[in-house]
Parts: sequence; structure tokens; C-alpha cells
Amino acid sequence: MSLAATGAGPRRLHLNVNILHSGFVPSAWRLAEADPRAFIDVNHYVRVAQMAEAAKFDAVFLADNAAIVDQIDFRPITALEPTVLLASIAAATTRIGMIGTASTSYNEPYNIARRFATLDHVSNGRAGWNVVTTADLPSARNFGRDAVPDHAQRYERADEFTGLVKALWNSWEDDAFVGDKTGGRFVDVTKVHPVAHRGRYFDVQGPLNLPRSPQGHPVLVQAGGSSDGRDLAARHAEAVFSASQSFEESAAYRRDLNARAAAYGRPGVKVLAGLTTIIGATEADAVRRRDELVDLIPWRYSLNRLAGTLGIAVERLTLDQPLPHDLALPAGGNGNHTFFHATVAQARRHGYTVRELIRSLAGGTGHRVIVGTPEQIADDIEHWFKGGAADGFNLMPDALPDGLRDFVEGVVPILQKRGVFRTEYDGTTLREHLGLARPYTAGSLLKRA
Amino acid sequence: MSLAATGAGPRRLHLNVNILHSGFVPSAWRLAEADPRAFIDVNHYVRVAQMAEAAKFDAVFLADNAAIVDQIDFRPITALEPTVLLASIAAATTRIGMIGTASTSYNEPYNIARRFATLDHVSNGRAGWNVVTTADLPSARNFGRDAVPDHAQRYERADEFTGLVKALWNSWEDDAFVGDKTGGRFVDVTKVHPVAHRGRYFDVQGPLNLPRSPQGHPVLVQAGGSSDGRDLAARHAEAVFSASQSFEESAAYRRDLNARAAAYGRPGVKVLAGLTTIIGATEADAVRRRDELVDLIPWRYSLNRLAGTLGIAVERLTLDQPLPHDLALPAGGNGNHTFFHATVAQARRHGYTVRELIRSLAGGTGHRVIVGTPEQIADDIEHWFKGGAADGFNLMPDALPDGLRDFVEGVVPILQKRGVFRTEYDGTTLREHLGLARPYTAGSLLKRA
Repeated sequence: MSLAATGAGPRRLHLNVNILHSGFVPSAWRLAEADPRAFIDVNHYVRVAQMAEAAKFDAVFLADNAAIVDQIDFRPITALEPTVLLASIAAATTRIGMIGTASTSYNEPYNIARRFATLDHVSNGRAGWNVVTTADLPSARNFGRDAVPDHAQRYERADEFTGLVKALWNSWEDDAFVGDKTGGRFVDVTKVHPVAHRGRYFDVQGPLNLPRSPQGHPVLVQAGGSSDGRDLAARHAEAVFSASQSFEESAAYRRDLNARAAAYGRPGVKVLAGLTTIIGATEADAVRRRDELVDLIPWRYSLNRLAGTLGIAVERLTLDQPLPHDLALPAGGNGNHTFFHATVAQARRHGYTVRELIRSLAGGTGHRVIVGTPEQIADDIEHWFKGGAADGFNLMPDALPDGLRDFVEGVVPILQKRGVFRTEYDGTTLREHLGLARPYTAGSLLKRA
Repeated sequence: MSLAATGAGPRRLHLNVNILHSGFVPSAWRLAEADPRAFIDVNHYVRVAQMAEAAKFDAVFLADNAAIVDQIDFRPITALEPTVLLASIAAATTRIGMIGTASTSYNEPYNIARRFATLDHVSNGRAGWNVVTTADLPSARNFGRDAVPDHAQRYERADEFTGLVKALWNSWEDDAFVGDKTGGRFVDVTKVHPVAHRGRYFDVQGPLNLPRSPQGHPVLVQAGGSSDGRDLAARHAEAVFSASQSFEESAAYRRDLNARAAAYGRPGVKVLAGLTTIIGATEADAVRRRDELVDLIPWRYSLNRLAGTLGIAVERLTLDQPLPHDLALPAGGNGNHTFFHATVAQARRHGYTVRELIRSLAGGTGHRVIVGTPEQIADDIEHWFKGGAADGFNLMPDALPDGLRDFVEGVVPILQKRGVFRTEYDGTTLREHLGLARPYTAGSLLKRA
């Protein structure tokens, strides 16, 4: 771990694996080689993480929901809580980053600051927090609400929450801990500062009851395509998990986000585009695999899920017709903006019927899916990276661990041979993998001035 | 893991190690062999847990605070968050239980249910939750309050909170997960039940987004000496962490707790008495070690801490005088009832001056301290256990890991030779170690009737 700011040197490609239990495709658990219990089996997550670490990935990523938000009669859900699960994974790995999702709508800032700082300590500097605001009704109803708080309010709370978590993380100066046995001096309390925050949503005195963590603080990640979401990312995030179906959309998103960050006087934000891979030895093999996986998904399931993404009644969707023409985000600005727009754009761009749309999304809710050979996928990744559409990818293999194995055995060596992806870690922390500067505390900034 | 209720067979002694960072005595970090950074070093906790597991202990136990509640200028504090830390420790152990503390005053029931159920999954059935209500002002001020909620209100909330967490843990029947690849049926949703809780403090719809965990649910532990605390334990706890200075007090406490539990139609509650050990080859060696440790604690620190326990101004304490005569728990019922009473009783019983009292407590806040040879300590443990003053002990060695090493090398073999303590685990879950029955869900009870 270096105390100096990093970020110099050539631009580097970043790869995360998003461990969506059995894989991205809702039917992945039905494959012959799959264990249906994988979603609650810590060994499954450890196996995937170790495979990604052997391939020198930047991080594992865990999504989260605080309710059952998908159709569990048919498919696995996000179940195990990310910070606890990541601490287990961290114990079985040494270099790869550990990014976990937690909601600002249904937690307290002090608790989140502590859990992720603890994860940073136990992983020796590999923790990241993916900030989400949680837009679904079932989650709201698990936390004393009968409706989802409106979009603007969720983002206002998230902004205050995230700023406060950063202040708590920075409440101990780097050298506050002394540990002088002879003098009997444990901590220099003049270097531990209350945050004394009095805000619209939170009153928190601080300081954190935990020395500053190995990375200074965990890496801040965010995923939000709405204007409020982009603004939150621009103000706080060091990396974003984005969803764009096309190169042009992603490049425009990345330019917009970096312009917003610059307006706040902040450095660039790493754009990690969501990407599902379905890999075959030939393109025809890959298409066959995609179709086999999609055919294992009941159409009833896919129609319900698509209707949920679009915020409409399922009766309005007909498999062999195009999408309805009058689609709009629900009033109040709820629903997932990113997935709504990505899905509608994908259908319109190709003139897809509902059936073709679902097939092209591999049963997913809006992330981009590439179906092809390792060479084709490596070309695509290189094109997006070099062309400025992304700084890296949050990979969601079709099925786990096999889809990741195909990627690390087939695609990674090509990217390495082309000099696009690292062949060895050159740091030990997630912050170093991502080329992010170590944050300074208010106290240490004074000393540098 | 057995589905059948356990609890039959001879009464068994239970031993936990409470990993109070560098050890129970506030100066433990100053010993020559101590690493002052141990309190934030995951490897330290893993080392202690592995030592306890090799000695066949029931569990490791982690206390918690959500603020800096001790004098960090002089000593380590509870810093790393227990559920995240325990997940790391679980990955490095296979049998020993993992009990972590979390507050009902500053968390949401859904989040706590999920984190401890996740810990139960990742540890293969070794999780326990120690329920606390958090009585200190610094914690209150980290969660939007300018005063500690009053005692009765904290316990009323804790009761609703704990009942709700149990309901969430039981919201999936044991056989709700199907995972039938051929039929495409993942979960039998008729066996997953909302909790639909509408209470005074919480409205939670449920169900949990996580199948029932390996133990049915994590073991419920509680620590509370007040009447409200005992009642909470009687209604919900399967084991308690108690603090009594004398055999008679502990036996009376155990009888009272079990009578209260019986009145609620519940089985007996395991009483695990707090016990600090200071071990020497001879009694004189042990006393010398105790005095050496106490002499490394500044009197200023000890006086402030004792004044805090008693809820009085430090100016009212004089080292070579007895305690003031007019001590009483603060109005509103706050302060730590258990430690207040244990400390006052200890001083009065022996006619101690303040200096003698602090020495007899080894600088602690009210837990019992034994200073002696392994034989003397084994005798004491056997006496308490066989005489019905305790079902086991939550050990807080003077210094870690060395004080635990002295215990497992010196005391454990004597207890094993006498047939008082196990020589091998006979189960794999914490629930099995403690001889506790597996809880049934409402659904599975219907089927058994």
C-alpha cells in the first residue's frame, strides 16, 4: 500500500466479475453442470472469486436487494448479505477487490461506514461500497414504508448519506494510532475528529470507533443512469457500474459523467460497463448456447420481468409484436431509469418483437449481452476501451462458474497478449488496481499545505 | 446437522472466549509480547479463535459498541464490526461457534435478521446473535439522538425487534427450497410466508430474502441483569452472558432466569458467566502477573472508568477510601445495571477501598476475576458448574492470545480429565455444541401436529 496518490501511467483496462449467484441468465441454475444451491453456498462464491483472482481481475462485485424482488418460484435471487459474504471471500483470496452493494434508503450512515471500513481492514485494503438508493416496493415494505420514497428524495438522502460516510471514514487521521507501550499512549486523540453532522436526514456526532482503513477509505462505486444518479456519481463515486446497449450511448454517458465530476472539481470517474458474455468456440456455438439458455426460461417469467422493467401490466406485452408505443417512466420518477431506457432503446434500434427482445437480452433486464467467440469478445472489449466508451467492464457471465471459466481461459489471454489487460497485479489494494488516488483527511491536507 | 431436537443426555459445560481485542485488562496491549495493533488485525482474532477451537470451545464471542465509549488515549476499543469480522474468522475455522453482538436500538430488524442468517449460512450453522440495547450516550449521538432512550423503552423495542427477527428467520419453511432443474421449479412459494408485522416500533412485511439457515436460525444470546433484561432473556434467549461476582448471586440469577423462562413456556436458558482468568504456575505468580498488569494502568484511567460504571463524578472517588455510601443507579434507569450492582457488591462484600476494588477487578468494570493456578481455576469452574451457578463461562482472558494459551494448556486438560469438558466436538453447529433444540417454523409445526 502506498501513501502517495496513484493514477499516473498508461490507461488500464479494469475487469470485475459480478457474482450474480448462478449467473446472469435466469435459467443458469438449470444447466447440467450447475448446483441449484449455489446462491446460498459460500464455496460457490469463493470458487468464482479465486478464478477471477487467478485471471488478475480488479474485483468481485455483489449486487443486493433487501426483499424478494424477482420470481423465486422459477429462479435464484440475491440472498446472502454482501458485506458478510465478502468478508468470507476475502479470507480465501489475497489481491482481488471486494465491492458490495448497500442501500442508503434502508441503513444508517454510521453502520455502513463501520461495516465497509471493517471490510477494508479485514481484507487489507480491498473493499468497495456500491451505493444504491433501492427503488422497489417490496424493500420499502420491509422497512416500515408503504410506498417507495420518491426519486428526488431518495437521491437527496443518498447524497447526504454518502458525504457523511466519507466524513466518518476520514474522522481519524492516518497517524492517529500511536500504540506506544512505554509511554502508555494508545491513540493521539488530537488526531481523531468528531464529524458533528447536522443535516436534513441525519444527525451524527462521530468520530467512527475505528482507525482509518488501509485504503484511506473504501472505494466508492455507484450505479445510476438518471440525471440525479449521474449527479450523485459525479459528486462521490470513484467508479460507476453502467448499463449501455451501444458504444455511442456508453461513450456519451462517460463524457457526461466526467464533465459533471469536473464541474465539482473532482477527478475522472471510471466507467465500468455491464457486460454479459455468452461464449462459444464458434459464433454458431455461442448462439446455440444462448438459445439453449433462453429456451430454459419460461416465457411467462420473462414477460412478467419485462413488464416490471417497463412499469406496465404484463397483458400489454405480446410475444410476436413490438413493444407498445406509449411507454414512459412511471410518475414520481421511480422504476429503474437505466434499465427502462436501455431496454426500450434496444427494442427500437433493432425493431425487435417482444420475443426477439427477450432473446437478445438473454432474459435479462437491460444489460448488454455479447454472444460470440473469445476473439470477437476481445475485439469488442478492446474497441470499447480504446474508443473511450468504457474504462472497463462489470462482467456478468451467463452462468457461473463455467461462463467465467470460458472468459478467463478464452478472452483474458487475448487481451493480455494485446497488452490491453494486466498479466500481474502491480498493487495490493483495490484502489491501486483501479488507479485511484488515496483520499486525504482534512487533518492531513492541512499538514500538506 | 440434525433436524431432531437435541438437549437430552448429561449436562455439559460450555466455554466461550470473548475476544476483547488485546485482552480483558486495559493494559494488556502494553505487555512485551503484545502487538498494540491487534485490535484491528484480523489475524489476531483468527489466531485466538483457532486456539479456542483446538481446545473444543463452544464459541468465540464478540462484544460491540457503536461509538468510542472508553478512553482511547490509553487503551484499545471495540472497533471492527462483529458480523463482518466473524465471517472472516468463520472462513478460517470449521467447528467453533461465532457469536456477535448487535444493538436493537440502532439497527433495523430486517437487516439484522439477514446479516446473522447470512453468517449462519457462510459458517455452516455456527452463528449466534447477542442482543443488546446500548445504554451509552455517545452511541445515541451517532444515530440522531441527543439522549439515550429510556430503559423501559429500549427493552420494549428490543422485545418487538427480537420477536420480529425470529419471525423473519422462520419465514421460510425448511423444505421451501426445491431446486428442481427438470421441472424448472426453484422455490415452493407456498412454503415462504410474509411476516406482515405491524407493531409499535416496526412495520415489516417480509418474508426474508434468504432460505432458512443451517441451524434453523442463529442462536439467540442476551446479556442483561436488570429486571427488564431478564425478562427479555426469558422470552427470547437461548443463552445469556451474565456477570456475577459470587456463586450465590449467580445461582440465584440462574434460578430466577429459568423460572421466568418457564413462565413463558420456554425451555431453560444456558447461563454463561463472565469470567476473567489470570493464571500462574503458583498462586503467587498469578498475583504477581495481576499486579504487574494493574500497575500498567494509569490510576486516572481506572478512576474515570469506575466513575462511569457508577454514574458519578470522578471527584467523588478517593483511592484509599471506600466507595461513597449513597450510590444509586441514575434516574431513568440508564447505566449498566449489571456492572453497577456487581461492582458495588464486590466493594461492600470485602470492605475494599477504591484502590483495592480496582485491583480486585483487574481494572475491569464488574466481571469476576480469578487469579490462581490452573488447578485452582479448574476447581472453581467445576464448583460453579456442578453446583448450578452456571452452565458455562464466557471467558475473558487477561491478555490475548497468551492468557487463553495458559487456559487451554493448563485448565482445559484438567477439566477434560475430570470429565467436565468435552474432548471432541460431537456436533457441527453452535446449537449442537450448546445442546439446544432446533427451532421449528409455524409451517413445520402444523405438519408435525
